[in-house]
Amino acid sequence: MSNPDDCRAKLVVANRILAHENVMDAYGHVSMRHPDQPDRFIMSCSRSPELVTLDDLMEFDLDCNPVAPDDRRLYGERPIHGAIYKARPDVQAIVHNHSHDVLPYTVSRNLALRPMIHSAACIGHELPVWDIRSRFGDTNLLVLTMDHGRDLAQRLGSNAVVLMRGHGCTVVADTIEQVVMRTIYLTVNAKLQLATLPYGDITFLSEREIELSSELHFSSVSMSRAWEYWARRSGM
Amino acid sequence: MSNPDDCRAKLVVANRILAHENVMDAYGHVSMRHPDQPDRFIMSCSRSPELVTLDDLMEFDLDCNPVAPDDRRLYGERPIHGAIYKARPDVQAIVHNHSHDVLPYTVSRNLALRPMIHSAACIGHELPVWDIRSRFGDTNLLVLTMDHGRDLAQRLGSNAVVLMRGHGCTVVADTIEQVVMRTIYLTVNAKLQLATLPYGDITFLSEREIELSSELHFSSVSMSRAWEYWARRSGM
Amino acid sequence: MSNPDDCRAKLVVANRILAHENVMDAYGHVSMRHPDQPDRFIMSCSRSPELVTLDDLMEFDLDCNPVAPDDRRLYGERPIHGAIYKARPDVQAIVHNHSHDVLPYTVSRNLALRPMIHSAACIGHELPVWDIRSRFGDTNLLVLTMDHGRDLAQRLGSNAVVLMRGHGCTVVADTIEQVVMRTIYLTVNAKLQLATLPYGDITFLSEREIELSSELHFSSVSMSRAWEYWARRSGM
Amino acid sequence: MSNPDDCRAKLVVANRILAHENVMDAYGHVSMRHPDQPDRFIMSCSRSPELVTLDDLMEFDLDCNPVAPDDRRLYGERPIHGAIYKARPDVQAIVHNHSHDVLPYTVSRNLALRPMIHSAACIGHELPVWDIRSRFGDTNLLVLTMDHGRDLAQRLGSNAVVLMRGHGCTVVADTIEQVVMRTIYLTVNAKLQLATLPYGDITFLSEREIELSSELHFSSVSMSRAWEYWARRSGM
Repeated sequence: MSNPDDCRAKLVVANRILAHENVMDAYGHVSMRHPDQPDRFIMSCSRSPELVTLDDLMEFDLDCNPVAPDDRRLYGERPIHGAIYKARPDVQAIVHNHSHDVLPYTVSRNLALRPMIHSAACIGHELPVWDIRSRFGDTNLLVLTMDHGRDLAQRLGSNAVVLMRGHGCTVVADTIEQVVMRTIYLTVNAKLQLATLPYGDITFLSEREIELSSELHFSSVSMSRAWEYWARRSGM
Repeated sequence: MSNPDDCRAKLVVANRILAHENVMDAYGHVSMRHPDQPDRFIMSCSRSPELVTLDDLMEFDLDCNPVAPDDRRLYGERPIHGAIYKARPDVQAIVHNHSHDVLPYTVSRNLALRPMIHSAACIGHELPVWDIRSRFGDTNLLVLTMDHGRDLAQRLGSNAVVLMRGHGCTVVADTIEQVVMRTIYLTVNAKLQLATLPYGDITFLSEREIELSSELHFSSVSMSRAWEYWARRSGM
Repeated sequence: MSNPDDCRAKLVVANRILAHENVMDAYGHVSMRHPDQPDRFIMSCSRSPELVTLDDLMEFDLDCNPVAPDDRRLYGERPIHGAIYKARPDVQAIVHNHSHDVLPYTVSRNLALRPMIHSAACIGHELPVWDIRSRFGDTNLLVLTMDHGRDLAQRLGSNAVVLMRGHGCTVVADTIEQVVMRTIYLTVNAKLQLATLPYGDITFLSEREIELSSELHFSSVSMSRAWEYWARRSGM
Repeated sequence: MSNPDDCRAKLVVANRILAHENVMDAYGHVSMRHPDQPDRFIMSCSRSPELVTLDDLMEFDLDCNPVAPDDRRLYGERPIHGAIYKARPDVQAIVHNHSHDVLPYTVSRNLALRPMIHSAACIGHELPVWDIRSRFGDTNLLVLTMDHGRDLAQRLGSNAVVLMRGHGCTVVADTIEQVVMRTIYLTVNAKLQLATLPYGDITFLSEREIELSSELHFSSVSMSRAWEYWARRSGM
């Protein structure tokens, strides 16, 4: 991710892919850490992912203030991104969404999302659920302050995904491509696990299978095939 | 909603959006109260929402008679609209539909629709079910007379949504944009609740969360992002 | 249905609609009784409904022989049509399909399809299941002989729909438009009933509601709105 | 399958069909045995099936080495194909995919896929499940070596389909058209069986019905209708 222009273009494609694959609807957002200035991140102004263009991208500091403020409206939930980039220096890209397939796992205490298929191994072994109510009581459920963001980042811990009660989920990764793949297969696994659970006696991936399958799935040959496919389908 | 022409254009877009998002099929209708004459409402002649154009819009008095009758066919269920605009001076826009995701909740007495996700908070805390049979016995289930309409409006009460047994639902709101959002997320919540119910132990939104999330969701920044997205997808 | 050319054009549209609404895939067929010669019926040569054009239409006698044989391949299951047109002089149009939503009801003896929503009232009160194995033992399940066809027609009796075990269903009606509507809402009701059944305590339509709702749904104002919508969506 | 050029063109169409019918996403592959040289098979370089063109096709020996190596990336799971072509001289075409509808049957020991509808008879009476862990312990689940491939081929035995735990399935057939049909209806049956299982008391196809229905479904009149339909839908 050396050329900032390439990165920006890729961020636009990521928005389009996630919208086209029905992982995001009118809401949700994708960000990347600035490739040269790790204390900044890049994200669209307030616009649905399906419609994001290069011109919509803006830079923010890690307190979520725009570096060059103008009169455009901003996503209210910027603290999801700022707080996680602060807490997790390893993270380079973040997706927040309200994926329909994932939402049931955020509201029923009897459901626990776990990787069941090799292509979803990259969601990791543990997917904590964050309930904003635990610390902040009744709210509109959105992550609107850095306090909310820090609490969310703490629940995320060193994992790749954090589920958010009655709201959605947040996914982090080392690259834009990886965060897109992780987000898409999180959704696939969520859907398939819900279809299988009623029958019971399920073989989930072992911890070592998760590790080995993730590595394979994030490899260059696997990733470039999927990215070419998703990008073309999204019309980019 | 000051300029009547703008409002009419918006009403056409609302028809297209609800058809494109699969909330309405061949049937269903959207109306708005006349912006200058509160004792009138505007609605299409008998035409599927996906095909409605500006030329199809007609004005009706609150007894559902066309202000300027011509030879066009009319929706038979105009009394849904007339009766609610009479009973609820606060209501400015109404959607009636047969959304597939909502229908199960209208026929099983063991299902009760409740907001489970923040984006559906706007459907409100209570969603009464109206059964035309309770007062009118065996009918074709349609709301074809002002008597039917008044009974439906009474069951709706001060709520935002009324479910109709074996038929569909009716959604009301303060603006066209709000009635579209409420209708779409009603469908989303209905689908997700049905997927989650078998697992039990669900955290629904609290009353205060419903209030706070509704407010946020209907705010200008949230609404304009969604409306731009839905309108573009519908080809408008 | 006086002008034979108009009827033929409508039959093509019916093929396209049923394919576009996902009621038929590569297989299935629609036929109409000849408007002037009641001892003939019109149907496509062997071609998937989505691809049928005017040139594909052929005439058959009620023993299913082509009136003007040529070298085109024919649907193997013509006896469904011939045998029903013989047994039911009232029937003017027939659809046979393998609708996914309907298939579960053909194989589980614990499932009984019944109209639950007003728009599906037209499927009628009783939907018998025909199992070719009962009389013919092990076969390839297709209705390939007039003997098979007569047995199916007998099970259909005076109803509007007959389910076929492990195979699909056959729907009959007084007009092409009606057979299309009945087929589409059969699918909708089947899907919704399966979604609702796990929750129990369902209010199905009463016999009188079925009668009154059917009448309304098949009325000119209701039918013309739906036909315009379906035809346009199918690209016709 | 005499003309090698025709076969290659058909293989491209098969890729597009399986992608368009949602049986394959970014991953999965289709191969054919070389029509003139039975010790070779033809398959795309590493590319998503939806994007495969004639230029992507390459030849491999049965140890999965490219006959004319160049710098293109290859599918890692070539051993699925090489090992099965070695073990099963009758097999002329192979599909490997991660079909969502099939995956539940690979992970729950309480689910057994069986043909329930006549159009899926061709999946056969027995569908073994292969778990790579049984012999190879923790892996990334992929079939990356000839050892893996031989083990998979052994589990497939003389059947038409082998399910792969937490991974997907592999389907074999006598022709490209047949492997496409078998793969598509495997998915349909899997989806419908999952929808029906909760209700119990299911009539599955008998062994003789499976035999007779398969024969009919693979007949020229049935196959050509379906192939024309799928090819046109896929844009080919």
